[in-house]
Amino acid sequence: MTETIVKIDLSKSAYENDMIHNRWHPDIPMVATVKPGDDFIMECYDWTGGQIENNDNADDVRDVDLTQVHFLSGPVGVEGAEPGDLLVVDILDIGAFQESQWGFNGFFSKQNGGGFLTEHFPDAQKSIWDFNGMFTKSRHIPGVEFAGLIHPGLIGCLPSKDLLDTWNEREKELYDTNPDRVPTLANLPYADTAHMGRMKPDEAKVAAAEGARTVPPREHGGNCDIKDLSRGSKVYFPVYVKGGGLSVGDLHFSQGDGEITFCGAIEMAGWIHMRVNLVKNGMEMYGVKNPIFKPSPIKPVYDDYVIFEGISVDEDGGQHFLDVNVAYRQACLNAIEFLTKFGYSKAQGYALLGCAPVQGHISGVVDVPNACATLWLPTEIFDFDINPTAEGPKKMVDGTIDIPLSKDKE
Amino acid sequence: MTETIVKIDLSKSAYENDMIHNRWHPDIPMVATVKPGDDFIMECYDWTGGQIENNDNADDVRDVDLTQVHFLSGPVGVEGAEPGDLLVVDILDIGAFQESQWGFNGFFSKQNGGGFLTEHFPDAQKSIWDFNGMFTKSRHIPGVEFAGLIHPGLIGCLPSKDLLDTWNEREKELYDTNPDRVPTLANLPYADTAHMGRMKPDEAKVAAAEGARTVPPREHGGNCDIKDLSRGSKVYFPVYVKGGGLSVGDLHFSQGDGEITFCGAIEMAGWIHMRVNLVKNGMEMYGVKNPIFKPSPIKPVYDDYVIFEGISVDEDGGQHFLDVNVAYRQACLNAIEFLTKFGYSKAQGYALLGCAPVQGHISGVVDVPNACATLWLPTEIFDFDINPTAEGPKKMVDGTIDIPLSKDKE
Amino acid sequence: MTETIVKIDLSKSAYENDMIHNRWHPDIPMVATVKPGDDFIMECYDWTGGQIENNDNADDVRDVDLTQVHFLSGPVGVEGAEPGDLLVVDILDIGAFQESQWGFNGFFSKQNGGGFLTEHFPDAQKSIWDFNGMFTKSRHIPGVEFAGLIHPGLIGCLPSKDLLDTWNEREKELYDTNPDRVPTLANLPYADTAHMGRMKPDEAKVAAAEGARTVPPREHGGNCDIKDLSRGSKVYFPVYVKGGGLSVGDLHFSQGDGEITFCGAIEMAGWIHMRVNLVKNGMEMYGVKNPIFKPSPIKPVYDDYVIFEGISVDEDGGQHFLDVNVAYRQACLNAIEFLTKFGYSKAQGYALLGCAPVQGHISGVVDVPNACATLWLPTEIFDFDINPTAEGPKKMVDGTIDIPLSKDKE
Amino acid sequence: MTETIVKIDLSKSAYENDMIHNRWHPDIPMVATVKPGDDFIMECYDWTGGQIENNDNADDVRDVDLTQVHFLSGPVGVEGAEPGDLLVVDILDIGAFQESQWGFNGFFSKQNGGGFLTEHFPDAQKSIWDFNGMFTKSRHIPGVEFAGLIHPGLIGCLPSKDLLDTWNEREKELYDTNPDRVPTLANLPYADTAHMGRMKPDEAKVAAAEGARTVPPREHGGNCDIKDLSRGSKVYFPVYVKGGGLSVGDLHFSQGDGEITFCGAIEMAGWIHMRVNLVKNGMEMYGVKNPIFKPSPIKPVYDDYVIFEGISVDEDGGQHFLDVNVAYRQACLNAIEFLTKFGYSKAQGYALLGCAPVQGHISGVVDVPNACATLWLPTEIFDFDINPTAEGPKKMVDGTIDIPLSKDKE
Repeated sequence: MTETIVKIDLSKSAYENDMIHNRWHPDIPMVATVKPGDDFIMECYDWTGGQIENNDNADDVRDVDLTQVHFLSGPVGVEGAEPGDLLVVDILDIGAFQESQWGFNGFFSKQNGGGFLTEHFPDAQKSIWDFNGMFTKSRHIPGVEFAGLIHPGLIGCLPSKDLLDTWNEREKELYDTNPDRVPTLANLPYADTAHMGRMKPDEAKVAAAEGARTVPPREHGGNCDIKDLSRGSKVYFPVYVKGGGLSVGDLHFSQGDGEITFCGAIEMAGWIHMRVNLVKNGMEMYGVKNPIFKPSPIKPVYDDYVIFEGISVDEDGGQHFLDVNVAYRQACLNAIEFLTKFGYSKAQGYALLGCAPVQGHISGVVDVPNACATLWLPTEIFDFDINPTAEGPKKMVDGTIDIPLSKDKE
Repeated sequence: MTETIVKIDLSKSAYENDMIHNRWHPDIPMVATVKPGDDFIMECYDWTGGQIENNDNADDVRDVDLTQVHFLSGPVGVEGAEPGDLLVVDILDIGAFQESQWGFNGFFSKQNGGGFLTEHFPDAQKSIWDFNGMFTKSRHIPGVEFAGLIHPGLIGCLPSKDLLDTWNEREKELYDTNPDRVPTLANLPYADTAHMGRMKPDEAKVAAAEGARTVPPREHGGNCDIKDLSRGSKVYFPVYVKGGGLSVGDLHFSQGDGEITFCGAIEMAGWIHMRVNLVKNGMEMYGVKNPIFKPSPIKPVYDDYVIFEGISVDEDGGQHFLDVNVAYRQACLNAIEFLTKFGYSKAQGYALLGCAPVQGHISGVVDVPNACATLWLPTEIFDFDINPTAEGPKKMVDGTIDIPLSKDKE
Repeated sequence: MTETIVKIDLSKSAYENDMIHNRWHPDIPMVATVKPGDDFIMECYDWTGGQIENNDNADDVRDVDLTQVHFLSGPVGVEGAEPGDLLVVDILDIGAFQESQWGFNGFFSKQNGGGFLTEHFPDAQKSIWDFNGMFTKSRHIPGVEFAGLIHPGLIGCLPSKDLLDTWNEREKELYDTNPDRVPTLANLPYADTAHMGRMKPDEAKVAAAEGARTVPPREHGGNCDIKDLSRGSKVYFPVYVKGGGLSVGDLHFSQGDGEITFCGAIEMAGWIHMRVNLVKNGMEMYGVKNPIFKPSPIKPVYDDYVIFEGISVDEDGGQHFLDVNVAYRQACLNAIEFLTKFGYSKAQGYALLGCAPVQGHISGVVDVPNACATLWLPTEIFDFDINPTAEGPKKMVDGTIDIPLSKDKE
Repeated sequence: MTETIVKIDLSKSAYENDMIHNRWHPDIPMVATVKPGDDFIMECYDWTGGQIENNDNADDVRDVDLTQVHFLSGPVGVEGAEPGDLLVVDILDIGAFQESQWGFNGFFSKQNGGGFLTEHFPDAQKSIWDFNGMFTKSRHIPGVEFAGLIHPGLIGCLPSKDLLDTWNEREKELYDTNPDRVPTLANLPYADTAHMGRMKPDEAKVAAAEGARTVPPREHGGNCDIKDLSRGSKVYFPVYVKGGGLSVGDLHFSQGDGEITFCGAIEMAGWIHMRVNLVKNGMEMYGVKNPIFKPSPIKPVYDDYVIFEGISVDEDGGQHFLDVNVAYRQACLNAIEFLTKFGYSKAQGYALLGCAPVQGHISGVVDVPNACATLWLPTEIFDFDINPTAEGPKKMVDGTIDIPLSKDKE
């Protein structure tokens, strides 16, 4: 029977568990050591460490303490792993705990992190998703059910000290260009809420002050939020410290490309089953800077889509130069508008794009001045037909249900 | 037998054919009128109108006159089409001419348009691709062969006068922010090389001065360069003028997401077979601003990929804020580096990413400050195995062949 | 939390559990009643009720008591279900028990049931498969690993008395044409080893004498062994008795089309999570005699195959008339021969065709006198490349390992 | 430009073209010789050589002379091909002639060949299919349109004299068991209508008396009618004579597994573009007896199905022993019954199963006494939704159109 090398207790704070950490630092001690070829299971808190509850009130999303995120399980050492190697991780399976078959999606208040469409959705909102075997649906968004494309939002190896310094420097530099921006330009080290795993208190105090926040994806992978890193995929991670130090968390039951709602995917606590191997000296042999990976043979296939285009002209008519973000934002807004024709609120539409396995493609990035991006909305996740017809759309959702909203406190 | 309503003669200049135009203007006369439900064929020049030849010299790519592009066939009027409708276009088939079974891909000189990676590839280069039935390979890039994902790079309806004015204003505004930039920020109207189809000379002269250039994708679709608009797909185009006025051109035998080489895909002359229908008042009924479409059931399926991540830290270590372009550029550069390990030159790698059906996904756009993009490289297009192994890569390409390069003239 | 309405204890005999039965009879009492729309979990013994063990000895396969099979969980009643309805079953998930992450495949001795190729493999053999998350591999067949296409081999509703009588009559009639045949032509009712669930002893005794054996698929579905009835699929079962009476068992981690090894797939104990609904009067409305179903969106996709043809000329050169069984047997033998070129024993090849998600297509059934069948072998399940090349196959398996065999007792 | 090595003139009889033949014989002279690595085009008559016309009358199907079929193009010699080699054929593309964009499907009269369901459809009927680019629809079967899965029904190399003798002997032996059967058990050599290509008259006369008929699939491939041998696939054919002698014909625009209507698929005249290579001594190296092949990356993907089960109990309740033909016949009849609920005639349903890309799977062949087969009907080919719902089916086809029928002459 496969060993579970990190166990958690959802009824206790993540801070009490020394196999958890929420900052990146080369000196966080390994919680276990495995051999190449081994497979093992790690249990994970949801990314907020349990701050969000299964109820119909978005206050917890509004009041979330984002300095705590993300709670990661690990790091796990791999015998023989050395800087320059590639750590090959087969994601063999992922699941929610039997007693916790649900997840959440939310929009943060613009004052507390926001999201991709925060100008349009400035208030905290959340939706709860129940898991039914391999499928999920939400009591807050009627008429949809889909199979989970379960994946870890955050996974990677510990950075070296040099790499950590590089991260801190470049992000500080950006931050300093507009330190008062809301939402912030970057999340700098913040010691108060750091959880440094098994580091001794004195060392932890020092490390916490320089430990990188877990929010952005970086060279090592990290918070890539790539929906396709799903169970069945095979990932090659750069190794920067002896032993590698693989940490993982932020499990998602499902997510759309872009994780546009920021909070984020369908977020859940659960477990992940992995196997590790090494490609010695793989970084140089294959010229690898960021992780590379191979897709899973066992992902949900929703093959029929309605696809929305967006170009880099913003919603006020402003012309941007080859800006894919603006283009993708337009594609998202176009999809949300389309969904309202079937009776959904805009917030329900936004949540759906964050949760369902929508694809976001970079379609054109050279035809000055407009980038073109496409948002692929799978039609088969709906209980009714959303394909355009000559007769026009039917209101299939009656508008009596919306997703909970909590206004900012005065 | 299906009628060919636009015929072309590749041995003659596109300017001599009055069923061709290379600017967008509401007053360009229809070249034919069809009924809803009709299917028909239109022949198309390649986007440059024959400026690039099937040889091993990139001078023609270096010296291309980009003020001439793109040569479009049409516009075709549809009975009953009125502003506010959606014109439904089934792309039934697309092909190259029997006597012209080849296409080209190129990088423009940085001084003449450049491309997505123009800082890395500042000189004009080109590769020629031979078509073998549904497949293609290039004498300039050994070891790859793949099925065509044939599609029109450019298709859409005529703009209204209001829409045209909006385009010209916003693009001029951007252009004026840095009129000396090389490459240019936007291509403004340019009368000298305009081809206004069947407009009478006097009217054409006036219209040419305000006709929008065909380079960028815009609200009507236009030069979207969406590889998935392939034969078998169904597209819903906004209608802005009576009759719609559907024009099409810039046929591609294959292209990767982003069309990163700008010149661009595997470009070809050929024909397109389409069927049209109407959704009356569809723009309002479905809330459609940009075209929406449905994918084809008959596209090539390359299901095994090596996937490269990129984040919005540029190649000099500069930190950008959630910039998907920077992230996708990194993913592309990572893929090119990887390909060199098998013996390809960087230019061959770059060309491959522009030509082969690679996918570009917007993976994360909210995890400040780093956007994350992924480049999906299909493994099955190669004659050899490019999957990473513990043994490392083998040089399968011996480097004796490269793609032609032409330095800028002094 | 979803209710588990049938629980089992693997350490106890299936005969001790009154929520289990191994015969079909209309009077077997429901073990629970659910409402349309409900989802629930049922635990299941492996089809033999635990006769086969996780070891390297095939004696248990040789000595299996096939009069006991299959041990089914249920029947479950559905409120409002009446004869003539269709019971809609969504298979939401299926899994092995955490403490029992393995399965078995075997060939029965020709004297005890045989299999599709029993003339070529007359002795009992078995292979053990370990489950690693969503994947499996066997210590008896090196070089292969694949994702589970998990499904119930046997599922359906209780027959009416009339239907039961029809079954018994027609099978007896066939049996009587050659009662001494080995293997047998049909398995007739057999009271000695019958387990009639919660029937009272007296009634059970009578019913056992007429209860249909569970071996063949019949009008109600039953032992269809359709690999595509996997988790995520939706099945419409005919209802013959009030309440429906849904029973299920014979869980398979994976299986090839045809279940050619008879014992059978990768057989396992585990649990199944289902949701039920009704289409009232659906049998007549849709003209349904046998179950119909829809495939899952979340099945493993192995898209690259080597495909073997077979025609209805047998291995001795005998000409058969449009016989698909003979044709498929040839295709299977051709595939096994091919696999030996890479170092596998014929028995390993046979086991692979029974376990891996191979497809069996009926390709031609009208071109007298030869039927044509095809066997699709997915290439991606192998650790090495099995595609034919000009260089010829390499022995990738060294022949030191074979699957255990137990000769018949004298 | 690719060379067309066999040209045909649809206005002339196939008998006048010496690059055509309709029997298999080792001595038929090559019509051209190509080198390994070459690609070339061959034009092909429809299988009947033009006996069936594009009209609304089934008399031509009733009166067809089946002793003439199939008219094949070739044989083509390949330099260096020797007995024991594998001839690797890449099917690069296939198409209908521009002036002949249509095909036919028919049921033969029971007295003249019949079909898989001839007891249910004893009269001659036909449907005409128009091709619209990559798609087809029929004026005789409203409400369906689908993409072509274009393939050659018949392709293979010339047999050796020994192999020819084996064929003739075993088929004669079967024929003699019931020489009066209608339809016949086998089609024996028949000199009167033989077309022996470029053989000299005297030699042709002798060879015609022993030339094998082209109807059944055999060891060399031949009339396999495998829908998946579509453009983009790669086939490995056994070589039996020096030069190989590749012949091809019986092009199909689309076909369902089993080609159950016998006449057959959507039959058409057209051209095929192929590339050839050799695996020297491949038959022994890979243990190949029948052709093996790899599927195309560019076939139509219809991923949503309603799937029908059938078991080996015939329509009169008769019990058969593990007979896949009976099981598949039941699955087909079940699907036809289902389609009538939407308004189709049974004949329209039958024709659809012969023409559309339905799959036929061998699901279970070991659970005595019932085989289980499944018929997969793609839902996306219909203009309306055929999925079962609680509301029941709607008559979407009004029954005013049926497919033409011609009664047998008295």
